[in-house]
Amino acid sequence: MTTTVNAYAAPAAGAPLAPTTVPRRAVGPNDVLIEIRYSGICHSDIHQARDEWRPGNFPMVPGHEIVGVVSAAGEAVTRHKVGDRVGVGCFVDSCRKCEACLAGLEQYCRNGTATYNDTGADGTPAYGGYSTHIVVDADYVLAVPESIDYAGAAPLLCAGITLYSPLRHWGAGPGKRVAIVGMGGLGHVGVKLAHAMGAEVTVLSQTLSKKDDGLRLGADDFHATSDPQTFRELAGRFDLIVNTVSADLDLDAYLRLLRIDGTMVNLGLPSEASSVRLSSLIGGRKSLAGSMIGGIAETQEMLDFCAEHQIAAEVELISADRINEAYERVLSSDVRYRFVIDATSF
Amino acid sequence: MTTTVNAYAAPAAGAPLAPTTVPRRAVGPNDVLIEIRYSGICHSDIHQARDEWRPGNFPMVPGHEIVGVVSAAGEAVTRHKVGDRVGVGCFVDSCRKCEACLAGLEQYCRNGTATYNDTGADGTPAYGGYSTHIVVDADYVLAVPESIDYAGAAPLLCAGITLYSPLRHWGAGPGKRVAIVGMGGLGHVGVKLAHAMGAEVTVLSQTLSKKDDGLRLGADDFHATSDPQTFRELAGRFDLIVNTVSADLDLDAYLRLLRIDGTMVNLGLPSEASSVRLSSLIGGRKSLAGSMIGGIAETQEMLDFCAEHQIAAEVELISADRINEAYERVLSSDVRYRFVIDATSF
Repeated sequence: MTTTVNAYAAPAAGAPLAPTTVPRRAVGPNDVLIEIRYSGICHSDIHQARDEWRPGNFPMVPGHEIVGVVSAAGEAVTRHKVGDRVGVGCFVDSCRKCEACLAGLEQYCRNGTATYNDTGADGTPAYGGYSTHIVVDADYVLAVPESIDYAGAAPLLCAGITLYSPLRHWGAGPGKRVAIVGMGGLGHVGVKLAHAMGAEVTVLSQTLSKKDDGLRLGADDFHATSDPQTFRELAGRFDLIVNTVSADLDLDAYLRLLRIDGTMVNLGLPSEASSVRLSSLIGGRKSLAGSMIGGIAETQEMLDFCAEHQIAAEVELISADRINEAYERVLSSDVRYRFVIDATSF
Repeated sequence: MTTTVNAYAAPAAGAPLAPTTVPRRAVGPNDVLIEIRYSGICHSDIHQARDEWRPGNFPMVPGHEIVGVVSAAGEAVTRHKVGDRVGVGCFVDSCRKCEACLAGLEQYCRNGTATYNDTGADGTPAYGGYSTHIVVDADYVLAVPESIDYAGAAPLLCAGITLYSPLRHWGAGPGKRVAIVGMGGLGHVGVKLAHAMGAEVTVLSQTLSKKDDGLRLGADDFHATSDPQTFRELAGRFDLIVNTVSADLDLDAYLRLLRIDGTMVNLGLPSEASSVRLSSLIGGRKSLAGSMIGGIAETQEMLDFCAEHQIAAEVELISADRINEAYERVLSSDVRYRFVIDATSF
């Protein structure tokens, strides 16, 4: 039986978010009902609520950084049980049979279902985590170890895996020099993860205003990209540059910071095409790459890694009535480092 | 004692090449004197003789696809002996102590000496292979197996290694689908090499005019990039795209042809910056990369591989007095597939 739950939604493209109710489907045999405790605010929530990427489905309930507790489980569910602390990330279903799904890279499945602003296989709209409850196929629900800070765990479901996956894929670890470009919601988790993996970590931020935080979170070094000296001093230094910034950067300048065989992996989506000189790649067998969140198995691996290394996001906890204000503050980079909504306030 | 040898040189930027003489240094303890037999014409010879990359050193004797026979060897030389068939590629010296040199990636050494249009460590100009003889440090001289066609071996020293190195580095082999973009001097060798490595090879050429040749050289498939259907039909198909074309391509269109985790590696240098949407990389963890020739050890490996698989370039042999005509024909893509100069005509 469909239930009706409290949520916050953008009623139309660009409209402020406001309280509403949305239906949640009956708990099927392989579903779990999650009582949401915390829901992170991702920059992409703002893009989508404001229709900046593509025409969205409205009313839209954003939220794909979800942690909570299982309050009901279908009879076929074995992965999770009532009372478990669990999480949901950026997608809640995939086709399970394409090359991507079979490789555990469900995030690249072309027939998956995003956690919100999408339509499920049953034809109903997907409503996200700005809500008190959500029903999700148990195969797309992660176990969130109790030892991770509860509110700080929420952003790991998107920001955490978005950084963990490329750091692992491109071999961040002892002896590797990793630069994290941008120290916001994504970047600050990247600093913690890369440090825990054993890499030498440098933050490249617009200014030095977050330097103390960066060093505290695990960075070995911190440079301002507004200082041209940074690009001279660090030439040829990094094995891996992880770019968390969506703004259009001078990619050639960053590629000069790579060692031979280095990779610059991009996680953000500039609104326009980027410019790059192929000579920046050819003169050192360098790569410009991209990466998008991670698969279910790797997301679980990330959460277990975070539990082992006591890693969570640095969060500012807010009540739901402050979402619109928080959106403005995200846009002006006025958050250290991720807003998380207390789901009891929906 | 310095000797004077016949050569063809561009006396000034953009001037037609004409017969001249140039000095060759005395054969030092670690040098070999090579009597050149064949010298390939690389597109980059034209760029440099016409000053299209950077202000060049004139008079300029181009040529970095050199095969010949050792006619004298310094007393410390052990790698080569008089009478050996040898080759010289794009560089004739490097610093031997930087990270690149120590990794066998001398092509990325910042203090190396190009075979021409450069100045050696002794301060004298480097004159290239459009000449009857050359003196080269034996450590930068390759053994060219007798079983490789003599004239067809010359282009292997640049075109061959330029393709071999990225094909090996990005794992071309059985079960991998490789696209070669452009079937010219570089591309046609790439088809042979990728096929010999066991990959499934597709040529992407502007038109189908070279289709019969492509299939004869080892391609499994051949598509015209002027046909929009090509980009629809081959979406998501390739593990590796090797782009030999210097013209500005629609990189996003090519990146759509890659599978998840695929790489498009670029070998040519467009004169302008390229445009790429980072979303083309992010939506499938794809890479846009570059590669430049190869190191000495890998160049030897390539020559040995070519000997084993009976691979040489397809060449049109010319005498030196036809160099200027050949340059024009290269620019209009009117060569199948590489011009090689008979060095007895210098």
